[in-house]
Amino acid sequence: MLRLSTADKDFEARFTRMVSDRRESATDVAKTVTDILREIRARGDEALAEYTARFDRYTLASDADWRIAPEDCRAAYDALDPGLRDALELAAARIRAYHVDQLPRDRDFTDAQGVRLGAKWRAVDAAGLYVPGGRAAYPSSLLMNAIPAKVAGVERLVVTTPTPDGQVNPLVLAAAHIAGVDEIWRVGGAQAVAALAYGTARIRPVDVITGPGRDYVAEAKRQLYGVVGIDMVAGPSEILVIADGRNDPDWIAADLLSQAEHDPTSQSILITDDAGFANQVEDRVDVQCAMLSTKVAARKSWDDYGAIITVGDLAEAPRLANALAAEHVEIATDDPEALFADIRHAGSVFLGRFTPEAVGDYVAGPNHVLPTGRRARFASGLSVLDFMKRTSFIALDENALRAIGPAAVALAEAEGLPAHARSVQERLK
Amino acid sequence: MLRLSTADKDFEARFTRMVSDRRESATDVAKTVTDILREIRARGDEALAEYTARFDRYTLASDADWRIAPEDCRAAYDALDPGLRDALELAAARIRAYHVDQLPRDRDFTDAQGVRLGAKWRAVDAAGLYVPGGRAAYPSSLLMNAIPAKVAGVERLVVTTPTPDGQVNPLVLAAAHIAGVDEIWRVGGAQAVAALAYGTARIRPVDVITGPGRDYVAEAKRQLYGVVGIDMVAGPSEILVIADGRNDPDWIAADLLSQAEHDPTSQSILITDDAGFANQVEDRVDVQCAMLSTKVAARKSWDDYGAIITVGDLAEAPRLANALAAEHVEIATDDPEALFADIRHAGSVFLGRFTPEAVGDYVAGPNHVLPTGRRARFASGLSVLDFMKRTSFIALDENALRAIGPAAVALAEAEGLPAHARSVQERLK
Repeated sequence: MLRLSTADKDFEARFTRMVSDRRESATDVAKTVTDILREIRARGDEALAEYTARFDRYTLASDADWRIAPEDCRAAYDALDPGLRDALELAAARIRAYHVDQLPRDRDFTDAQGVRLGAKWRAVDAAGLYVPGGRAAYPSSLLMNAIPAKVAGVERLVVTTPTPDGQVNPLVLAAAHIAGVDEIWRVGGAQAVAALAYGTARIRPVDVITGPGRDYVAEAKRQLYGVVGIDMVAGPSEILVIADGRNDPDWIAADLLSQAEHDPTSQSILITDDAGFANQVEDRVDVQCAMLSTKVAARKSWDDYGAIITVGDLAEAPRLANALAAEHVEIATDDPEALFADIRHAGSVFLGRFTPEAVGDYVAGPNHVLPTGRRARFASGLSVLDFMKRTSFIALDENALRAIGPAAVALAEAEGLPAHARSVQERLK
Repeated sequence: MLRLSTADKDFEARFTRMVSDRRESATDVAKTVTDILREIRARGDEALAEYTARFDRYTLASDADWRIAPEDCRAAYDALDPGLRDALELAAARIRAYHVDQLPRDRDFTDAQGVRLGAKWRAVDAAGLYVPGGRAAYPSSLLMNAIPAKVAGVERLVVTTPTPDGQVNPLVLAAAHIAGVDEIWRVGGAQAVAALAYGTARIRPVDVITGPGRDYVAEAKRQLYGVVGIDMVAGPSEILVIADGRNDPDWIAADLLSQAEHDPTSQSILITDDAGFANQVEDRVDVQCAMLSTKVAARKSWDDYGAIITVGDLAEAPRLANALAAEHVEIATDDPEALFADIRHAGSVFLGRFTPEAVGDYVAGPNHVLPTGRRARFASGLSVLDFMKRTSFIALDENALRAIGPAAVALAEAEGLPAHARSVQERLK
């Protein structure tokens, strides 16, 4: 864990080093992924079954082997503990409401020159959602990806998920039932992403692929960008907590650990103007961490990437926050708005002492798929827009063409494109 | 040129083959680009100068060699023919107005559970715009990329453009003056894209890179996706004209040629319900083409990729249009709305007999940077959103946390994330 203070003489250099520190795996998987994509494209289901046997030790033979049936999802839902079912339903309802409110409006207007202009938003026909197997198979993640797609109006929502040794996660199936997923295929890795993008005899291609995945899955999405639409490539996640000394150190310690427990490469950072409070939080992190079932990951994340930065005044925090452009930013002060106004780059911001980041992971409503690794400088969280596209339109009558057409002719001629000019001139003869 | 009719027995097979035909260059430039990116990252300006000397035969030594000064842009603007200057200003004003109207609205509301939710849109700090040298250096393209960035609120807008043998395009400089570009660097190719993404001693890094470019530039953007934001990878462009027999064949022929003249790999397709009209258009294409200064490209594009599809009823056209998902779709009928309602996938649609696609290239207002190569299935034209990002926010008070917090605890425990649960529980003690 790194302790910094803006009062240190070498602060800027050390802070800059921390900001530019790359926590992402440097494994070069590009070549392997290229090979897998080529195989799936050339040999389809046959190659898919081979990779699945090799990587997931799972045999794809009969139709039943390939897919998880809607009835299985329904059964998993019915078998849920009622409290958990209610929690999933509450989460789904709140996520749905937030994303419905996010739907973009079409535009259609006629301007002073009599030119009618506008734009229509439409959902993509089909979306693919990658759901990891194993530890990272989270029902909340399925809801956060699937619900925006369905709210956008996607008619065919396809999940691929690896089932190593045949194991499935009943919570994920229950979430798929709630979200209205249309197909679930028991394949994973780069091969699943390739199947979604290119299509195979069994799996029809989709238009957009979203969902978490490290290394091979992320590289496959990157290589297929352009063949399909993809969401932002995601790296290890991070939280920045900006807190004054009037917080309960146990609350803030829990918030820092809630990020650290995700993965050893997660990052938790506290900025405070109270060095004594910083010490208390540091102590409480140690005490709480020891009690967690996730302590191995949490400890390593905190030791390797955790940081506490002491500032002379919290007004210095937004500048540091903008440089970090963190996925999650908590502002635990009495007047969080004052600092939020100066924060330009953040995935999601949690305002006030009673807004732990974890509510955003599950039930608040906004999406928990957020830009990581400083990508909040240019990227946004997942939204209905990731599953939609816009068609602009233009309509001129003869008068409107007479008003603006000659300028188009002048520009087309200047650019050396005579047929462009002619297409306007023919109509103005 | 391909003639098809939906009445042909083998129509579906031939149409499907046409749709899946890839017109994009298959040159494998990935390895070369990877090397260039690594060199720029490691050696910065020194490597940039080496590549520029090699590829552009241009020496970067003094400060004046590296940059084009704002005064040079101003001078190019002042030296313009007044008619052309007015045309550029009209185009800029109309593009600006359309994109201002496109600015997204922030959200901020409190729901029934007392949870305050919302989202704030902000511009990225800096954007880089790639402007090709040579034939494809279009002032209209500069306006279409630069104006949305400035409307979005981007404070630092950086252009890179190769100047082979030292040559600059005064029209592009004039357009840069109008659009308010902040910096112009005389570098191009994958090395320019790398400099924009990583930054060098001279060129500070940007957050988003847009702008046209084939092969090396497109591959560089793809490889840097995630380090920066990028616009959609673009391929050769295309037009689909849906026209009944009551059009002037000269108008429609000019429209088809206006796409074909861009590049030998452009594609122009006519769908009509009138075989006699189709023959007339085919004749007029031949006659007009012979008169064009761009006839070499136009002829090759039309011969290799042009198509005329005859349908029994224009009501069949939207299904074909959706499969083609073309960049540009013209609907030249009396009631274009009727067909437009069924077109789900298109970059931009031009409604009615007096709306040639060329007005959209220059002066209508909507962006002419549009998804090509069937990417309109999932992608949109360039917009202010490409230069902005959204930060969601959540604010709970104690009562709101009591209302929805327990569901977050239940889900966190089910997902095996005890610190997540604890961060809520500590506050509800």
